[in-house]
Amino acid sequence: MNILVTLDKNYLHPLKVMLASMFINNPGQVFDIYVIADGLEDEDFKNLEVFAAKKASFIHRVFFDDRVFDGAKASRYYSKAMYYRLLAAELLPKDLDRILYLDPDILVINEISELYNIDFEGNLFAAASHGDRMGVIDAVNRIRLSNFKADLYFNSGVMMMNLEKMREEIKKEDIFSYIEDNAKGLLLPDQDVLNALYGHKILEIDDSLYNFDTRNFIKDFIASKADKNMDWIIENTVFLHFCGRSKPWHRGYFGYFSALYKHYEKLISIYLA
Amino acid sequence: MNILVTLDKNYLHPLKVMLASMFINNPGQVFDIYVIADGLEDEDFKNLEVFAAKKASFIHRVFFDDRVFDGAKASRYYSKAMYYRLLAAELLPKDLDRILYLDPDILVINEISELYNIDFEGNLFAAASHGDRMGVIDAVNRIRLSNFKADLYFNSGVMMMNLEKMREEIKKEDIFSYIEDNAKGLLLPDQDVLNALYGHKILEIDDSLYNFDTRNFIKDFIASKADKNMDWIIENTVFLHFCGRSKPWHRGYFGYFSALYKHYEKLISIYLA
Repeated sequence: MNILVTLDKNYLHPLKVMLASMFINNPGQVFDIYVIADGLEDEDFKNLEVFAAKKASFIHRVFFDDRVFDGAKASRYYSKAMYYRLLAAELLPKDLDRILYLDPDILVINEISELYNIDFEGNLFAAASHGDRMGVIDAVNRIRLSNFKADLYFNSGVMMMNLEKMREEIKKEDIFSYIEDNAKGLLLPDQDVLNALYGHKILEIDDSLYNFDTRNFIKDFIASKADKNMDWIIENTVFLHFCGRSKPWHRGYFGYFSALYKHYEKLISIYLA
Repeated sequence: MNILVTLDKNYLHPLKVMLASMFINNPGQVFDIYVIADGLEDEDFKNLEVFAAKKASFIHRVFFDDRVFDGAKASRYYSKAMYYRLLAAELLPKDLDRILYLDPDILVINEISELYNIDFEGNLFAAASHGDRMGVIDAVNRIRLSNFKADLYFNSGVMMMNLEKMREEIKKEDIFSYIEDNAKGLLLPDQDVLNALYGHKILEIDDSLYNFDTRNFIKDFIASKADKNMDWIIENTVFLHFCGRSKPWHRGYFGYFSALYKHYEKLISIYLA
């Protein structure tokens, strides 16, 4: 199973928590984890490799030629890191046909395989939307982003990538020019670009299963989604996504899933040391 | 390490969750688990034995002669189950010198050994109090319970038992007659008796480490016990006690530790099946 992560040094710790939860809840599964990183040292990679090896999985450092980004506007707003996900098909080995991209602020609490083997139905990606039911958030994004063709605004924290199709259809020149034209209007640059240019070629997957925004727990519970209570989540949800500024690895965080997150954080040292 | 549990059939499931958490967070430790049960069948014990054996631990069914309870008032208020903890030293094998009693509505999230090896300093028990800092709850109990000599009202959900000393000092006749005299005034019968008769011979241990009332999390956090936030709890607390009527194995429970509890609940089937 191929996994893609992109990170800088600040996310090394949460990445390990995410990987630990993935290993523990997908017993017997071998993972090939592709890492596109900024500012990580050889020692950091060595450390990740040893960590993954404890669960018979592999870390692959993705090397690429910086000339890939020739033509990208040198902006004081964004670094080249924002292109990593969008250009994944170009940066990754050409023999990979699909990969699961995961943000590091995620816990994997159930088995991934069903999502991993999804039928893309010709789409470039499969991803979930956090748009509310009334569609207000999506309407705002439709106005905010020029060229927005999709019905939904997708969250890019969990994405199944159809690499074969991406190689055919994603042109980096389109991305570079979209950013050049819209630079100041982009709130979440790569997610915005993804939605604006490719939103209509994303297969929607259920966010309560595959991209559960942990901030929504109380709201959803009060809204009487009785079938999506804590029992349902622990039994069914695959990815808990700790969206927002307040992160569960910060001291003093006390969101509803804080005990669970910190439990996995502790497991790193006990079981994977 | 000797563990004592008392239960009826309704608590078989939470007992397994409690044991699973204890096994997982005390790696390499062998447990001798003594079970005093009402209404459990041979099959239930067999099932528990197989469960414990997966982690190289042992279930010991405690058999006793019902004549132990001769002299106890046959009351329509209480069953003989309320005497099990109080008379543990009499019911358990005579060669045991100490044992850790645990309620089944507990998660064990760190290592037990430091508490287990505590110096009793001549006391019968070591236990924690849930009384608030102002002492209001304790003052109420001092008025409510006749013969109450201790400074604190102790919670009996987690208790280190000094069995040698208990055999010398606890007389079942004292217990039977206290109950006969106070039957209608006892809210939590065995805990009340324990406090009234033996409260002054209980060594106090820190509840934030050894008997953390999960209902207190928000209150304590707001009270700016900044050193006892979720990080501190996951790192240090040994026993999380799900006190109160609302229990984490009930569907729809959504207390602050619900995700953690349900995670362990799921581990029963995955790792110990």
